[in-house]
Amino acid sequence: MINKKKPLILVTNDDGISAGGIRFLINIARKYGRVLVVAPDSVQSAKSHSITQATPLILNKIDEEKDYVEYSCSGTPVDCVKLANHKISLERPDLVLSGINHGTNTAISVIYSGTMAAAIEASLNNIPAVGFSVNSYASKIDFSQLTPYIEDILNKVLTKGLPDNVSLNINFPDPSTETIKGMRVCRATKGAWAEDFKDACNPHGKNSMWITGAFNNFEPDAKDTDEYFIKNGYASIVPIKPRFTAHEHIETLKEWNL
Amino acid sequence: MINKKKPLILVTNDDGISAGGIRFLINIARKYGRVLVVAPDSVQSAKSHSITQATPLILNKIDEEKDYVEYSCSGTPVDCVKLANHKISLERPDLVLSGINHGTNTAISVIYSGTMAAAIEASLNNIPAVGFSVNSYASKIDFSQLTPYIEDILNKVLTKGLPDNVSLNINFPDPSTETIKGMRVCRATKGAWAEDFKDACNPHGKNSMWITGAFNNFEPDAKDTDEYFIKNGYASIVPIKPRFTAHEHIETLKEWNL
Repeated sequence: MINKKKPLILVTNDDGISAGGIRFLINIARKYGRVLVVAPDSVQSAKSHSITQATPLILNKIDEEKDYVEYSCSGTPVDCVKLANHKISLERPDLVLSGINHGTNTAISVIYSGTMAAAIEASLNNIPAVGFSVNSYASKIDFSQLTPYIEDILNKVLTKGLPDNVSLNINFPDPSTETIKGMRVCRATKGAWAEDFKDACNPHGKNSMWITGAFNNFEPDAKDTDEYFIKNGYASIVPIKPRFTAHEHIETLKEWNL
Repeated sequence: MINKKKPLILVTNDDGISAGGIRFLINIARKYGRVLVVAPDSVQSAKSHSITQATPLILNKIDEEKDYVEYSCSGTPVDCVKLANHKISLERPDLVLSGINHGTNTAISVIYSGTMAAAIEASLNNIPAVGFSVNSYASKIDFSQLTPYIEDILNKVLTKGLPDNVSLNINFPDPSTETIKGMRVCRATKGAWAEDFKDACNPHGKNSMWITGAFNNFEPDAKDTDEYFIKNGYASIVPIKPRFTAHEHIETLKEWNL
């Protein structure tokens, strides 16, 4: 971490440090600056914004060369971002990249996603952050079609920054079946997951089941949503800023005289 | 689950099924209706909105009597809500209660909290939901001071319902040191956690550390926040509706010509 002129880019994910998506993203990031990788040592899908409190975190230095350091961590994606920013690096990253996630994170999936939680955690500290996902669960994915789009994003976010507490949620169509037509800025689709629990055939006689489910799109005809653009061959870009307080209901609730 | 006239109340938490907070909440809930408990079999603090995908969930029936069934589950608080609503119960709950969490969930802590994630998960399915927390980590807490406040909440939420996708985040002062003065509807405090990593003294020579931290209140002089009311002896009530898309930045981002 010598050259102070190159931006410092933190890369993480939720599929684990050896996933194809993060290896591809690291190689692109290295063209743009000094790269610090802190990524989970195991699959951390659907870990949302969870942090590890009940056990210590274990950190392993995997690789170090000029303008490049790589660590694996026993924790969640959000643990990785906190460790990178508050323990490993003396310098604040200029950009945080998360992904490329194997599987999309459109619509309400943002609330469950470890990939997007890492980007959101960075944005809470006002560090520009981008989460990338692709509509494929294949173990081997040819990501090369995505390169010019990711480079365009990196160029622009490094130049322009992002508003306070805003990260980008970018989802790509499956590059093995689609020719990507471009990128479109849009909003998250309204919808919900409908769960379906499948018997896990426990040999010890315990009541065991896998959680599975399907996404219900509540607005299949809308043409300005992430689900619409991905289905039509575009990458979707949704600006994300998490807000929890329902300010619009405070006055009504006061009338309850609680 | 025989009497169709009594409301069905689902109770869960993130401190685990044997925690003092959930046992107290269950006893109050049983005065108001039929109660289904589905709670984690271990501590699931700070698990946020995570769900268990990599392993099967294990469900154990612990207790069953008139108008009462209790299960423990190997998963997270959100797994518990999904299991209860989509697997265990043929009937949609009228109310979901989560907690009473040992430790507050004010301000940005909502994004990390398993207690509030369970309430939020219910609210995403338009089931009225309330998360309760108390400003004490003591293993034995005398919750009796909280009873009239929790009963007031249950009476009003069961009567009036809550707006779509809205849950309530209720935080109580420490009843062992404070005489609770009342409840106040308010907004979440602006602030962030500053992490501090402590050496975990790993006997195997690995680089191990505990995540710890302190909350930085960005608006210590504000008098309409949850932190303010708890510090002044009131229970805080914040209406919660999670929103992620930053609609106000979509047009600006379109001008980037991505």
